[in-house]
Amino acid sequence: MRPFGRAPDAMREITLEPGVSLYAEGSCLARFGGTHVLCTASVEDNLPPWLRGGGKGWVTAEYGMLPRATHTRSRREAAAGKQSGRTQEIQRLIGRSLRAVVDLKALGERQITVDCDVLQADGGTRTAAITGAWVALKQATAYLMEEGLLKADPVYGQLAAISCGVIDGESRLDLEYEEDRRAEADANFVLSPNGGIVEIQATAEDRPIPEKAFEELFALARAGVATLGEAQLAALRA
Amino acid sequence: MRPFGRAPDAMREITLEPGVSLYAEGSCLARFGGTHVLCTASVEDNLPPWLRGGGKGWVTAEYGMLPRATHTRSRREAAAGKQSGRTQEIQRLIGRSLRAVVDLKALGERQITVDCDVLQADGGTRTAAITGAWVALKQATAYLMEEGLLKADPVYGQLAAISCGVIDGESRLDLEYEEDRRAEADANFVLSPNGGIVEIQATAEDRPIPEKAFEELFALARAGVATLGEAQLAALRA
Amino acid sequence: MRPFGRAPDAMREITLEPGVSLYAEGSCLARFGGTHVLCTASVEDNLPPWLRGGGKGWVTAEYGMLPRATHTRSRREAAAGKQSGRTQEIQRLIGRSLRAVVDLKALGERQITVDCDVLQADGGTRTAAITGAWVALKQATAYLMEEGLLKADPVYGQLAAISCGVIDGESRLDLEYEEDRRAEADANFVLSPNGGIVEIQATAEDRPIPEKAFEELFALARAGVATLGEAQLAALRA
Amino acid sequence: MRPFGRAPDAMREITLEPGVSLYAEGSCLARFGGTHVLCTASVEDNLPPWLRGGGKGWVTAEYGMLPRATHTRSRREAAAGKQSGRTQEIQRLIGRSLRAVVDLKALGERQITVDCDVLQADGGTRTAAITGAWVALKQATAYLMEEGLLKADPVYGQLAAISCGVIDGESRLDLEYEEDRRAEADANFVLSPNGGIVEIQATAEDRPIPEKAFEELFALARAGVATLGEAQLAALRA
Amino acid sequence: MRPFGRAPDAMREITLEPGVSLYAEGSCLARFGGTHVLCTASVEDNLPPWLRGGGKGWVTAEYGMLPRATHTRSRREAAAGKQSGRTQEIQRLIGRSLRAVVDLKALGERQITVDCDVLQADGGTRTAAITGAWVALKQATAYLMEEGLLKADPVYGQLAAISCGVIDGESRLDLEYEEDRRAEADANFVLSPNGGIVEIQATAEDRPIPEKAFEELFALARAGVATLGEAQLAALRA
Amino acid sequence: MRPFGRAPDAMREITLEPGVSLYAEGSCLARFGGTHVLCTASVEDNLPPWLRGGGKGWVTAEYGMLPRATHTRSRREAAAGKQSGRTQEIQRLIGRSLRAVVDLKALGERQITVDCDVLQADGGTRTAAITGAWVALKQATAYLMEEGLLKADPVYGQLAAISCGVIDGESRLDLEYEEDRRAEADANFVLSPNGGIVEIQATAEDRPIPEKAFEELFALARAGVATLGEAQLAALRA
Repeated sequence: MRPFGRAPDAMREITLEPGVSLYAEGSCLARFGGTHVLCTASVEDNLPPWLRGGGKGWVTAEYGMLPRATHTRSRREAAAGKQSGRTQEIQRLIGRSLRAVVDLKALGERQITVDCDVLQADGGTRTAAITGAWVALKQATAYLMEEGLLKADPVYGQLAAISCGVIDGESRLDLEYEEDRRAEADANFVLSPNGGIVEIQATAEDRPIPEKAFEELFALARAGVATLGEAQLAALRA
Repeated sequence: MRPFGRAPDAMREITLEPGVSLYAEGSCLARFGGTHVLCTASVEDNLPPWLRGGGKGWVTAEYGMLPRATHTRSRREAAAGKQSGRTQEIQRLIGRSLRAVVDLKALGERQITVDCDVLQADGGTRTAAITGAWVALKQATAYLMEEGLLKADPVYGQLAAISCGVIDGESRLDLEYEEDRRAEADANFVLSPNGGIVEIQATAEDRPIPEKAFEELFALARAGVATLGEAQLAALRA
Repeated sequence: MRPFGRAPDAMREITLEPGVSLYAEGSCLARFGGTHVLCTASVEDNLPPWLRGGGKGWVTAEYGMLPRATHTRSRREAAAGKQSGRTQEIQRLIGRSLRAVVDLKALGERQITVDCDVLQADGGTRTAAITGAWVALKQATAYLMEEGLLKADPVYGQLAAISCGVIDGESRLDLEYEEDRRAEADANFVLSPNGGIVEIQATAEDRPIPEKAFEELFALARAGVATLGEAQLAALRA
Repeated sequence: MRPFGRAPDAMREITLEPGVSLYAEGSCLARFGGTHVLCTASVEDNLPPWLRGGGKGWVTAEYGMLPRATHTRSRREAAAGKQSGRTQEIQRLIGRSLRAVVDLKALGERQITVDCDVLQADGGTRTAAITGAWVALKQATAYLMEEGLLKADPVYGQLAAISCGVIDGESRLDLEYEEDRRAEADANFVLSPNGGIVEIQATAEDRPIPEKAFEELFALARAGVATLGEAQLAALRA
Repeated sequence: MRPFGRAPDAMREITLEPGVSLYAEGSCLARFGGTHVLCTASVEDNLPPWLRGGGKGWVTAEYGMLPRATHTRSRREAAAGKQSGRTQEIQRLIGRSLRAVVDLKALGERQITVDCDVLQADGGTRTAAITGAWVALKQATAYLMEEGLLKADPVYGQLAAISCGVIDGESRLDLEYEEDRRAEADANFVLSPNGGIVEIQATAEDRPIPEKAFEELFALARAGVATLGEAQLAALRA
Repeated sequence: MRPFGRAPDAMREITLEPGVSLYAEGSCLARFGGTHVLCTASVEDNLPPWLRGGGKGWVTAEYGMLPRATHTRSRREAAAGKQSGRTQEIQRLIGRSLRAVVDLKALGERQITVDCDVLQADGGTRTAAITGAWVALKQATAYLMEEGLLKADPVYGQLAAISCGVIDGESRLDLEYEEDRRAEADANFVLSPNGGIVEIQATAEDRPIPEKAFEELFALARAGVATLGEAQLAALRA
């Protein structure tokens, strides 16, 4: 049995709260159950040196977690003097995923940085971050259009992400922390709600998993992303 | 005239929301107008090496700011690989202030780390952090008493903090960002609501200020801290 | 047409040269065409602090690239003062993959570190590294058995890895650098030669890819890993 | 009783030795009893990037302590790879104080860096540093005028600094190390010898201190700074 | 007796294999017995900022060692976050030596970086590195002449390097690791095969050594470098 | 002609002022003309982890330079976040040299750290540092004997160091900065005043130098070290 009697294919309560930041051009507070991620999209005219003059813009992401977002306090990365490998892996994933649905030429020579900061963590922080980041990004490009700086929206596609995993041989959607830590396999799917793969990361923990298990996880994720896609559109209409 | 027609001795709207964290032993979301600081107090049995075996505990603080807490995005300190001098100065101030009202022997050989993370910044982040940190700290020691780990509360005193400054020759309480940046002098007072000085930091920006101006700021701060002290007690009763 | 007239499902010339290091307990020089990775497995009695006394061992990996392994010289990470996000991501992948086929309890309280150093890079360095790392790891546990330190081999499963990608709409196996840099999608598969998934990482570069493309890549990888698995066993028999 | 029978309002022997550096445009070796700080002021045409082209100059300070300046050897910050929070706090204080008496526009687009290096420490290093730094700074602007690079002195005000504190309930001026470490409160005052506050930092160590104690410390500091101001002018005439 | 019955004035088997890198403008794999160093020379148009516009080029070197190049695994410098003092000392020596035989003006405003990476270490890595680096450097300038970018070779002199030392009172040439670690004195000579000193570093380990011992080491080195010089020329003709 | 009409074999004015530090167990301010190095020897019971329990002590050195010790200000290493290669090379040289005349077993399980801080630099800082460091070290072991912690002096030999170089074809002793920067070759000799080589570092700057030049430099150094040795003994008697 899952915690709180959840069905294997049921997601936790999802809320996407747009426009939460006083200053950012786009923002969204994404809550997947006890996992809360604050996403802000910042527009800057300044491109990284290796992109200047190329007629293209850039979308990138940074990820962080407050020290007591977790059950026990973890060390502050700024105090440790570096971002962990896990942090870098996640922020690379978020940025890469977003860029797969953005026309960087149409964006023009500007950069949008999406910061995803985990205020509270209960599993699935990277997929909640991606789902919220897309909303914040859309708000930021809407802002650029309102300001007359862009004529058309360079974000031409939609994407959302969800985690799933195998626990005690059962394939489950949207793992919370207690499930995640004892999963035999877990996978993160970044998908387009209308079909199409942006990124798949599937990992066996203890031993290789059969292909059938992977297919089950994929099916769960497809359904989950469809629901998330609707929530994103509703948030943007709000 | 101040923004929003505020009187020189008026504070912004203050809210102290306790218990906002699912995991931390104590927590408080402190809002001073547009300045929002999430304070969590984490109890750990592990003392820093130089304190072990001394029969005393420790209270320390860390401070951080989300990259887009500010008008323009600032660089993430974890990405930069170090905490700025400003960050270190502030977190040293918070920790030192809290320790001035804690009996470290009575705390026993454990450490309480108060993390103050600025979600949104509109001036006065360090004083909002101290004010919220005290609430989070009190919740954490209350937790230790409830768990039977402590018999009496080692936090024997109360403190709160407020900024004030001189703008166009006028002494004002609780500066917001637009005031702060053009102040001729600014001062942060960490005081006991019942009288008593914990820390004073007063700084002239452009030229030395007369002692009379300092006295005016001190008087404003005394009144402000009295109000904050009541809000803290109300929050703890909630 | 692929470079050198390769068929879409053809791998480059693969050689796995075991025992190349004078000192390491296990080693393998893996060559996938112009990609050359030196893998060494080092056995140490010293576990990281967080694993000591737990009755289990650990397998981990580190990855590096010589500055002129690439077409143009890249900055030495030791001189830059940190490992890039890409490096960390790859070495986490290698270590995680290997651990999925090792019984850490049976290994006992010792650590095996597999260093994968790219002497020359022409695409697919991480999959060549994993394929060679498994051979080096097997040599190291064979050494432990010969020395009488282990009775049975804790490496209970086999794995190999291969990259593939979509270029101009065509699904191809074992990309070289010139293909990789203009691929519409690329995927790395870490699989058991006898079936079973260890890790899948699939990434769309410009826009989401259809599920059918993913299936084609998976099929190519399955065949490639079968061939690699035979080469690994042959190398170990040598 | 104070060490060496000093009266509560007596300073240690103070010497300010100007022009001690062969190369620096301004310099001063400030000795407050056993505390010796070497201050050098270096003029550079090169401004930090964020100030270039603004028609203004900059005055900044750096602070350091030789490893065996103290009773027991402390770790060299260059070897530790970073400046401590204490060091950064002090050097920010020195720079900020000096800028409060400098007309940065009149300085022109150049930077003066004042290095304050503690050769020997016996309490009050930051206030000795500020007092000596002002002398070094004045020498440097005098040099700029002699060279015809400036017509008028951009240092329009004078400042000096002194520490004081409460020990066993007694307010004392110019603490030495053995007093400082057991003070109930200590305060650093950066003042203009002719009246005017540049910076006040007052800290209660164990519990809040009454306002009356603060007033006593302030009075001691006022007298101390008057004496220091005369010593500064004498040194510059030398 | 030396290991393998070597005579005191005998070098180990030396091979210099040029052109081993697919990409580098010059390269050489230098093997001195069990010591294997991969040297690559990379030509870049980009000069370090402090040399730009000076009408001169630059030759520099970097040195590294694979973690398991040695008997026991040593920590990866990229993971440690910095290059050791030993590494920096060696790479400064290599670069300085090479520059002593290069006409930097004739090189033009370009930089040649010689990377010396130790694949396997059995004593004398720095001297093997210098010997191989010179071959790689010559290949790189030959490349520049072939491309028509240079008319004459800016490398106007030849150099090679060898270590020697005193073990049990006996002066020996080309120490291997087991000799090196118990030597009473060791010396590295960078010499021109036709006579002339580029660099000498002689170090007594336990107590000062007599001048006579130094003279013996120098004589051994002279002979060794003569042999190495022939091997270098042969390699370049290959 | 040398600056100030110095003869090629004449040293600058040398003063060795012992016992200058209030706290250090041994200290010496070494002045070679305009080069001033403050050397302190600190005795600590704490050995580095890799030496504990081995029944031996350790002697090590650290080297630093105040930012404005030089003609133009150089960046503070603590602010830069690391020690330069040059700094590390020099402090390794100082420590290695001192250890060549110390019986580490007789020292017992304690460490002596000699800090050499350059207050003013005019060439030859490393040789002045070594010469002064030996005096400070001797004072520290004398202190250990006075305290009854050691019966015999573990420093069984004497050493001093001097630089020399070839300028315009002339071999000169004890170079000052203006000579050093345009020398064709320079060499640092660490010698025993009674004969015996501790360390030789000779470097050709522009092209290999003939052996005869090296012999001239050696002869100059021998004479210089004899003089320095007498000054050291006189300082210790003072």
